[in-house]
Amino acid sequence: MQINIQKLQSISQRVRDNKLFEWLVVSVILLSALLIGARTYVIPGSIITLMHWLDAGITLLFLFEIVVRFFATEQKKYFFRSGWNIFDTLVVVVSLIPIEHSELALIGRLVRIFRVLRMVSIIPELRTLLNSLLRAMPQLGYVVLLMFIIFYIYGAIGATFFAHINAQLWGDISISMLTLFRVMTFEDWTDVMYETMAVYPFSWMFYLSFIFLTTFAFLNMVIGIVVNVLEDEHAREKQAQDKIDGKATLDDIMLELRSLRSEVAQLKSNQGKSN
Amino acid sequence: MQINIQKLQSISQRVRDNKLFEWLVVSVILLSALLIGARTYVIPGSIITLMHWLDAGITLLFLFEIVVRFFATEQKKYFFRSGWNIFDTLVVVVSLIPIEHSELALIGRLVRIFRVLRMVSIIPELRTLLNSLLRAMPQLGYVVLLMFIIFYIYGAIGATFFAHINAQLWGDISISMLTLFRVMTFEDWTDVMYETMAVYPFSWMFYLSFIFLTTFAFLNMVIGIVVNVLEDEHAREKQAQDKIDGKATLDDIMLELRSLRSEVAQLKSNQGKSN
Amino acid sequence: MQINIQKLQSISQRVRDNKLFEWLVVSVILLSALLIGARTYVIPGSIITLMHWLDAGITLLFLFEIVVRFFATEQKKYFFRSGWNIFDTLVVVVSLIPIEHSELALIGRLVRIFRVLRMVSIIPELRTLLNSLLRAMPQLGYVVLLMFIIFYIYGAIGATFFAHINAQLWGDISISMLTLFRVMTFEDWTDVMYETMAVYPFSWMFYLSFIFLTTFAFLNMVIGIVVNVLEDEHAREKQAQDKIDGKATLDDIMLELRSLRSEVAQLKSNQGKSN
Amino acid sequence: MQINIQKLQSISQRVRDNKLFEWLVVSVILLSALLIGARTYVIPGSIITLMHWLDAGITLLFLFEIVVRFFATEQKKYFFRSGWNIFDTLVVVVSLIPIEHSELALIGRLVRIFRVLRMVSIIPELRTLLNSLLRAMPQLGYVVLLMFIIFYIYGAIGATFFAHINAQLWGDISISMLTLFRVMTFEDWTDVMYETMAVYPFSWMFYLSFIFLTTFAFLNMVIGIVVNVLEDEHAREKQAQDKIDGKATLDDIMLELRSLRSEVAQLKSNQGKSN
Repeated sequence: MQINIQKLQSISQRVRDNKLFEWLVVSVILLSALLIGARTYVIPGSIITLMHWLDAGITLLFLFEIVVRFFATEQKKYFFRSGWNIFDTLVVVVSLIPIEHSELALIGRLVRIFRVLRMVSIIPELRTLLNSLLRAMPQLGYVVLLMFIIFYIYGAIGATFFAHINAQLWGDISISMLTLFRVMTFEDWTDVMYETMAVYPFSWMFYLSFIFLTTFAFLNMVIGIVVNVLEDEHAREKQAQDKIDGKATLDDIMLELRSLRSEVAQLKSNQGKSN
Repeated sequence: MQINIQKLQSISQRVRDNKLFEWLVVSVILLSALLIGARTYVIPGSIITLMHWLDAGITLLFLFEIVVRFFATEQKKYFFRSGWNIFDTLVVVVSLIPIEHSELALIGRLVRIFRVLRMVSIIPELRTLLNSLLRAMPQLGYVVLLMFIIFYIYGAIGATFFAHINAQLWGDISISMLTLFRVMTFEDWTDVMYETMAVYPFSWMFYLSFIFLTTFAFLNMVIGIVVNVLEDEHAREKQAQDKIDGKATLDDIMLELRSLRSEVAQLKSNQGKSN
Repeated sequence: MQINIQKLQSISQRVRDNKLFEWLVVSVILLSALLIGARTYVIPGSIITLMHWLDAGITLLFLFEIVVRFFATEQKKYFFRSGWNIFDTLVVVVSLIPIEHSELALIGRLVRIFRVLRMVSIIPELRTLLNSLLRAMPQLGYVVLLMFIIFYIYGAIGATFFAHINAQLWGDISISMLTLFRVMTFEDWTDVMYETMAVYPFSWMFYLSFIFLTTFAFLNMVIGIVVNVLEDEHAREKQAQDKIDGKATLDDIMLELRSLRSEVAQLKSNQGKSN
Repeated sequence: MQINIQKLQSISQRVRDNKLFEWLVVSVILLSALLIGARTYVIPGSIITLMHWLDAGITLLFLFEIVVRFFATEQKKYFFRSGWNIFDTLVVVVSLIPIEHSELALIGRLVRIFRVLRMVSIIPELRTLLNSLLRAMPQLGYVVLLMFIIFYIYGAIGATFFAHINAQLWGDISISMLTLFRVMTFEDWTDVMYETMAVYPFSWMFYLSFIFLTTFAFLNMVIGIVVNVLEDEHAREKQAQDKIDGKATLDDIMLELRSLRSEVAQLKSNQGKSN
């Protein structure tokens, strides 16, 4: 049995690393994306049947591919440590469940749509890009918390004072926070303001202070992260480039100077001896 | 009495620095925030009574906490030097005032909402963030003044020329400035413009020049500050890192060179003597 | 006569540099700004008369101040070389012209509004800020030209193809360019697009390509300039700081090294001689 | 024949490099731009005839200019390697085709509008600017792909779930993607959201997550590129400036140090010999 598993693993690895197989998977992902788009148009019945079969074929190929990738992994237990592997497996498994009921059918379609995300897991550059975006997230943590507190306080004030003016916009704190997000995007915010100004003439201060706070915090956050990430990358690149070019660093010069100094010291001691 | 006060201080400090007490305060702040949110929904009377008691409990615990913090401070007179301490005390004191009248009740609710801000005073990272935002403010000073002058001049022009076209938008200088803020956020600004263009066909120049000036000044301001702050922080970080890594600086190299030179000079003088 | 003029100049200089006089001028500028704002409200007749007299007083003081500044200038011919002096003189001269007719009265009011700009010429920090904004302008030159060409081409296309759909938005090239500016600010741009898409279903490509081009060029322009200006300032500051701190530069180290080398060379030649 | 062609080439080169001819071409391009603008206004018949002749004249001069430029090129086959040359030739050739039919006439007018782009090919600074924008494009590649995937997935979800609510906004995947672009520009996006929230109360999560993802990716992309390009340019400029100023680099210092060391080594060996 041991030998069979090893043989299976080496065959799987050969299949997985085959250029033709890679291209097949990429084109099937593209085909599946096109099918998802096509489904949103009105299409004649005969083509729907064809699409049904194509869909089944795609699911089978994805199943085959995930099985090959699983067997090609040396340490089986590490396979599900990768978020992408879990994601791919989930998509395949849910696609396999036979669905008849209309509500579940919608979930099935949703899962099929997420297959397009496999494009990200296949193309290494996209994976790097997404990872760098995700890495920037934790730095956002406290700014997002601050913004949430701002939204919460303004939402509570809005729901307390404006609820009787327009319950659809300020009915409770969650609706208020959605309205405030709308104000933050400048989307017909003056209509919202003029309505409350009719009752509280000074409520423009509520909106203006909110806009100033959130705009400032938002800009601070986004630019801060982006510039930070860029500078780090730039510095890393420059350092790597300097190493490749064999450019002298301050430390190299320091080393050179110290060895020169020891030679001069030796020279001096020799001189002392010779005298 | 002296001894009693010292004892009180040490007990207070022990209570204040107790991890459990810290967590209790944080969770009570969270609970008070949730209560504020819950109040904006329609809730059955029995729960309102419960919330009333919870509210009283929160006020008492906040009172207890501020008293503990006050007694734990070594120099009592410095306690009210911190803006956060004054803020916390004010929130507690106003919460304690018994309020019956409906208008005052609203103020009471407002103060309770501001309790959520205590989240900022409790979490050190948020305090740092807010402080760094506040530090950036004075740098804004003159740009804000310049923008205010731009708004004032355009507001005066608008109120002078357009008041008879639409008094709701251009009635007096303060309404005009609010309308201009609306134009600055691009919120239905063409409706405002088309209305005045019907009377003054060249009034588009008023709006376009205003948009250019404010957009440019605003972008200049925000990006300027953010980039400035970031660069400063980056430079400080890098310097600190270099010191930790013990990296050579240009000054280190200069010192090394000078000591080398003095050794060579000594070498020369020795040579002179030996000859 | 010569002596009288010199005496006048020294008196003028003493008046101009007097702290009290400076404060008087600043407060009168502020008062004139307040008057301009007040005029936009409905005010009783008696106060209007008072404002009339105040206005006359302000004009006279401004006249006095400009005359003092003129006489205090050593080289009279250089006085009108400064844009701010010309601006101040113009504002005063136009304020002096007696105006009765209603249309001219509007121009008179406009000139009075521009008096607020004197705030910029009085406060040095604002003057520096405005100068730095103006200095950034020439760098914009070619990007503005490029954007104008984009607007012109899209405006011509719009006026050619869409004029029969909605003459109010696309009637001729200048109206088209205003409509495109509206599209650029995202102000109800989909209403404009859906209207033309009813006739030309692919006209969304016109709007999307326009939005991409202008957004990209605009962001490129604004961020480019701001970052450029900041980096220059930062570099200048750092250089100045390094000079103050007496920090070693690479050039200092090079000089040190060369002089060290010449000493070693001397050492060698001495050695040669001694052997 | 050989001589005639050489003579033609030298004459062409003299014409092409003639300052007067350059100015003639630039002013004719400007005139053609003005004509394009003028055509969008209602104009009397007599001027239309005049414009017709002017148009013919411009076409002939452009033809003459392109022929001159062609003959002035040393290696004829390299002439069409330049994108700008191909563009200029195409514009001239299409202008020459006699057009009577109304639909083709529109294409003819479109080609004439594109003549304004020749301004870019004539002014070197604009060409540099456009080239630098184009150079930034490939760096966008993967971010644009990522954004397209985001749009595609959200478009597919929108078309699947919301098509029955409003077919005009969510009818199929391409209409959905256009609607999402509208949401991304914050253009009346709440109207779109409130409509679907009436059926799916939690659909605000669809819009908010979409706005966060695209705003973040978009800002990341644009700022990233602009800052990157700027930093590169800045670094290049600084390096060039340092070279001009003859400033010492770390490598220069390293070379100096090494040669100093070899002299010290020689000194030591001499010392050894002399002892």
